[in-house]
Amino acid sequence: MIRERLFIYDTTLRDGQQTQGVQFSVSEKVQIARALDALGVDYIEGGWPGANPTDSDFFAQAPQTRATFTAFGMTKRAGRSAANDDVLAAVINAGTPAVCIVGKTHLGQVEGALGISAADNLDAIGSSIAHIRGLGREALFDAEHFFDGWKHDRAHALACLMAAREAGAAWIVLCDTNGGTLPDEIGRITAEVIAAGIPGRQLGIHCHDDTGNAVAGSLAAIAAGARQVQGTLNGLGERCGNANLTALIPTLLLKPPFAETLETGITPEALAGLTRVSRMLDDILNRVPLRSAPYVGASAFAHKAGLHASAILKDPSSYEHIPPETVGNTRLIPMSNQAGQSNLRARLAAAGIAIARDDPRLARILDTIKTREDQGYAYDGAQASFELVARAELGLLPRFFDVTRYRVTVERRRVGAEIKTLSEAVVVVQIDGHRSLSVSESLGEDGTDRGPVNALSKALGKDLGPYQSCIDDMKLVDFRVRITQGGTDAVTRVIIDSEDGQGRRWSTVGVSPNIVDASFEALLDAVNWKLLRDGATPVG
Amino acid sequence: MIRERLFIYDTTLRDGQQTQGVQFSVSEKVQIARALDALGVDYIEGGWPGANPTDSDFFAQAPQTRATFTAFGMTKRAGRSAANDDVLAAVINAGTPAVCIVGKTHLGQVEGALGISAADNLDAIGSSIAHIRGLGREALFDAEHFFDGWKHDRAHALACLMAAREAGAAWIVLCDTNGGTLPDEIGRITAEVIAAGIPGRQLGIHCHDDTGNAVAGSLAAIAAGARQVQGTLNGLGERCGNANLTALIPTLLLKPPFAETLETGITPEALAGLTRVSRMLDDILNRVPLRSAPYVGASAFAHKAGLHASAILKDPSSYEHIPPETVGNTRLIPMSNQAGQSNLRARLAAAGIAIARDDPRLARILDTIKTREDQGYAYDGAQASFELVARAELGLLPRFFDVTRYRVTVERRRVGAEIKTLSEAVVVVQIDGHRSLSVSESLGEDGTDRGPVNALSKALGKDLGPYQSCIDDMKLVDFRVRITQGGTDAVTRVIIDSEDGQGRRWSTVGVSPNIVDASFEALLDAVNWKLLRDGATPVG
Repeated sequence: MIRERLFIYDTTLRDGQQTQGVQFSVSEKVQIARALDALGVDYIEGGWPGANPTDSDFFAQAPQTRATFTAFGMTKRAGRSAANDDVLAAVINAGTPAVCIVGKTHLGQVEGALGISAADNLDAIGSSIAHIRGLGREALFDAEHFFDGWKHDRAHALACLMAAREAGAAWIVLCDTNGGTLPDEIGRITAEVIAAGIPGRQLGIHCHDDTGNAVAGSLAAIAAGARQVQGTLNGLGERCGNANLTALIPTLLLKPPFAETLETGITPEALAGLTRVSRMLDDILNRVPLRSAPYVGASAFAHKAGLHASAILKDPSSYEHIPPETVGNTRLIPMSNQAGQSNLRARLAAAGIAIARDDPRLARILDTIKTREDQGYAYDGAQASFELVARAELGLLPRFFDVTRYRVTVERRRVGAEIKTLSEAVVVVQIDGHRSLSVSESLGEDGTDRGPVNALSKALGKDLGPYQSCIDDMKLVDFRVRITQGGTDAVTRVIIDSEDGQGRRWSTVGVSPNIVDASFEALLDAVNWKLLRDGATPVG
Repeated sequence: MIRERLFIYDTTLRDGQQTQGVQFSVSEKVQIARALDALGVDYIEGGWPGANPTDSDFFAQAPQTRATFTAFGMTKRAGRSAANDDVLAAVINAGTPAVCIVGKTHLGQVEGALGISAADNLDAIGSSIAHIRGLGREALFDAEHFFDGWKHDRAHALACLMAAREAGAAWIVLCDTNGGTLPDEIGRITAEVIAAGIPGRQLGIHCHDDTGNAVAGSLAAIAAGARQVQGTLNGLGERCGNANLTALIPTLLLKPPFAETLETGITPEALAGLTRVSRMLDDILNRVPLRSAPYVGASAFAHKAGLHASAILKDPSSYEHIPPETVGNTRLIPMSNQAGQSNLRARLAAAGIAIARDDPRLARILDTIKTREDQGYAYDGAQASFELVARAELGLLPRFFDVTRYRVTVERRRVGAEIKTLSEAVVVVQIDGHRSLSVSESLGEDGTDRGPVNALSKALGKDLGPYQSCIDDMKLVDFRVRITQGGTDAVTRVIIDSEDGQGRRWSTVGVSPNIVDASFEALLDAVNWKLLRDGATPVG
């Protein structure tokens, strides 16, 4: 059977930049474009040159890619020719091999919002596409508001697509601009468009997630015959976002009927890097990755229910629809007071601790976990602390060092007209009889105060004597605080995520009525886990 | 045309609790159950009594609801009768009007994971359902792994459903347990099940979001004839979560073909409270609400693109698939904002500040609020701080006192065998040229350390000179901390609730990378608001 080629068009750098709070720098765009190219997408839409100074700069510095670089713009405006439209000229001047222009296809909006006739709209589309083709570029047409337009006045909507096609557009992209069309209707209308004479091999689909159906809508159009799909990494985009390529790509590559009938430019090796690409984008945006994200989320293969955990050990496919490593993700069996002993054994096994099914220590560990959860600890988001608790119970936790005392000071004072805050931490560590004092301030790279936990973290990591080389590549990457119930009192729970130079990421938890001390406890666990994992030898 | 009734089954309290990091307390479950009942769902699945102490306690204290309270459990185990199965008994003993039990329908898993015969599995299902019915309860059957089971051995999967139906199950729920089935297949198999003799009015659908298609899969099953849909608020749930009712409900109520052919127990008035319910759940979980969530996210009706924003003013439907107020959400246009100004006037009026419709200061206040929200402040939950910001902009904020400086120290040290922490705060206040130093420790009534914010709060309230009588009846009653985004950096947002002897309760907010300073800012706002409300006269 010959598989048909499906083309993947990424618009993270253009439509993704419409996300509230997102503004990529040129160097960030370069980094993302390189990652997209390595992933194997076919088109990279880089931005709207002319509409945005960053986008123009980016095209001037765009990296060499195997993917087709595409500039985005809009059809020529009324009352001038395509060659004399300066907005269109700025797009074309970016020099990309492909140019995608958006035009209205909803007659009500053509006449209302644009205030031009149907004929003028068709001319704007046709002459803009022809102009791009005349310059030797590949032309794509984004049919804005297409599904609403088709329902409003099918003849005009279709005429718009035909005008683009006759002028030489390589692709006609059906856009559900306001995101309100449901998958069944997207599939049906796409089939009707193909029946009306636009071949599927020239049809693209562009969905938004306003009803939570952007992925399903894209799949419906592909099932109906569309052979280009547009979307963004992690579903970035205006309002609720665009179709999420991070969810679509694995479905298209791994699931029937798509996997059997279509082929893309993405190899299994590249797919195994998908989780990393998704996290890289969050890292650039300084966002906490969505744990529940399909395929790539940290919880996507996490099994909390005790029943599930025991079934997973017998047959992973029971609760895992794909093997997590296919997309570069990993299985996680977290602890919680819902978990049974099988959960516990699986989690211990993952930490390299083998323990027999009927070992009485299993019940002891569960009791300890339960008691600590009643005090406010939460272990299903803090695997590393869980492992330390279990090891302590099993007598498998070496004592690397002691913190004799610490003192953290937070000060705020007026300095001239300004109010300044500064934190300072002193930590006293004892290792094999040797005492060392370390002091750190809480200044970030920009010289501003980052608070007491920052100071404490730095002081704790400053002088661990024989262990120093193990922890030098460690950094605190996320910090979550929650006021919760510990017994009858409110306490503070702090969860800290740490990373090291080997790409490990681990989470630890601390609980106390004192937020600084809760943080300290989580920091201490983070350091101890790292020493354990690196196989550090306890001194003394 | 007669609309068919569609039943909405919420499992936030059961399957939603499988979310990594989620562990509801009994009082949180009560609060969520009340909100679900007010929303108008038909079933509230409250948990698994017996499997989890919290769930058992919750059922003992469950509120009176119009919705049918449902306890979850599993079919009787092999080798004993339904009446003698203690796990099933614990579920039934919760005394709910309905009981939902899960059973395997995938023959491979029946023989593999359970290690029992097909006949024994059918007996477990039938006798468990019959036992529940015999006690006069409504019985529901969750057909676990149904879609995979149907593909593996259709005869056994169907026999399981028939066994449940013949034993008197009111509902048979098709579960896509590992979340791997795509919407088209869910729709097709649901139709096949109906054709095989299970009527749609007894069929439910339970989807998971592992491919990002849980909403679409649920819609496909409903389109095929299923008349019960299961899901959770905000799509909580194991791994990638369950079908998101917060997205499904508005689609079912507002969109063709569902809105025209089905009716639910949810009124338009209740639907207009959906955004509030969604935010309440995030508040309980101390999660940052997902801005891009369909329908209820803060960005769901935010229009960033300049082109979109101007089109919106001419025709909202161009970029809004539904009117945002339908679901209790609001449009956000980051430039001119008419709706923003009328909201603002209403909030000012609530604080006793009358201001004319066309007062140019309204725009200035909105700008200030917007700028501060970009820095991480949140004024929705901090009306007192909002009032202070508006008053400052209007020149209506007296200056009661200045804090010249403060210093907070947190120490931890060994005292004998014990580890002790202690916090101390020094605050220097200046009132009309008079300087006063106050110092406090952080000891609770039981002599334990309550942390740096406690010490700071006490020191700040210790000597405010002429204002002291106003603040003596003030106390800090709640304290919430969240790590959030301020510009490009993570910052700490602290919200403090205070109360006074007159029964007033007010909320203030502070933001800083330094958690102690964020708390200080919120404390300062709390004191200033109290002085303002008590009509204190500024000295000097």
